[in-house]
Amino acid sequence: MEINIGISNRHVHLKQSDVDILFGENYQLTKLKDLTQQGQYACVEKVTIKTEKSEISNVRVLGPVRNYTQVEISKTDSFKLGINPPVRDSGDLNNSSSITIVGPKGSVSIDEGCIIATRHIHATKEDVKMLGIEGLDKVSVRIPGEKGGVLDNVHIKVDPSYSLELHLDTDDGNGFLIGKDTKAIIIK
Amino acid sequence: MEINIGISNRHVHLKQSDVDILFGENYQLTKLKDLTQQGQYACVEKVTIKTEKSEISNVRVLGPVRNYTQVEISKTDSFKLGINPPVRDSGDLNNSSSITIVGPKGSVSIDEGCIIATRHIHATKEDVKMLGIEGLDKVSVRIPGEKGGVLDNVHIKVDPSYSLELHLDTDDGNGFLIGKDTKAIIIK
Repeated sequence: MEINIGISNRHVHLKQSDVDILFGENYQLTKLKDLTQQGQYACVEKVTIKTEKSEISNVRVLGPVRNYTQVEISKTDSFKLGINPPVRDSGDLNNSSSITIVGPKGSVSIDEGCIIATRHIHATKEDVKMLGIEGLDKVSVRIPGEKGGVLDNVHIKVDPSYSLELHLDTDDGNGFLIGKDTKAIIIK
Repeated sequence: MEINIGISNRHVHLKQSDVDILFGENYQLTKLKDLTQQGQYACVEKVTIKTEKSEISNVRVLGPVRNYTQVEISKTDSFKLGINPPVRDSGDLNNSSSITIVGPKGSVSIDEGCIIATRHIHATKEDVKMLGIEGLDKVSVRIPGEKGGVLDNVHIKVDPSYSLELHLDTDDGNGFLIGKDTKAIIIK
């Protein structure tokens, strides 16, 4: 049973009050293109993320706005920035890393909100039934290829709106040489 | 059976005639510190590696000089540089990627020599016997941890001078959150 893979580069989710600070009062994010997950999109807007040690520019904002601001980076990015963010599910930001986000109109320093995203699979109830992984929180996935192998601790996220897809960060994607057509195989 | 892991950042091996061009006639590389593998060392010298698209500075030269010049980068680096190097063992450079190396005294453009290194284990004959992997070309290794898993296609390199160690690039190291104390377990 092969499933599609989406590689997430570093990105930022914003709450509206932070959009206001970064881009201007009542600013509305501009959709650049739809992502695979229904209702989610890459925005035209980019920001710089910054620490005392360093900064990374041209970080994509994803829409729509959420009720929290969150910065997702890779371990490689974390070395450049000199921070040590925890591996977390989206929205689970307690005691995650602090970071500064810089936009064209202002900047926001958050005490927590910077994470390395867990490896995860988006699926519907029907998908997990079909895959035979109903009720499981986590699975492992096999990635084929010259630098393939198995990725453990892949969280299963179930919602009726989801499209079946494995989400990995760029470190996993590049370490395993995952390309546009690489598929993952679920291992229970 | 746990073995130590060494993470190799991007680096360059040079032949003496290229040292001459990059650093000056009859220049001798300066040892900064010994590496785990006997006789191998990091040098004080750094170079810039460059393509039409981009460049990466502060790339460490490793000594001693070899009879070939080789640039080892990660897949992440390859995207920045806009090239597509093959995954190869050291010295297996046929039809590998071209790249330019820039030193303080000159630059060298090589038609081939840039690779992504294979995942590999350095071991003695006694080590492979002890590990029960005599005669095998490749194994898989399990990495524990929050973003752990299994790395396939790990090449076994046997030499009396070797110290038992798994060598991975920074993409694998960062994807799997491999730290100073992380150990690998060999899977046949």
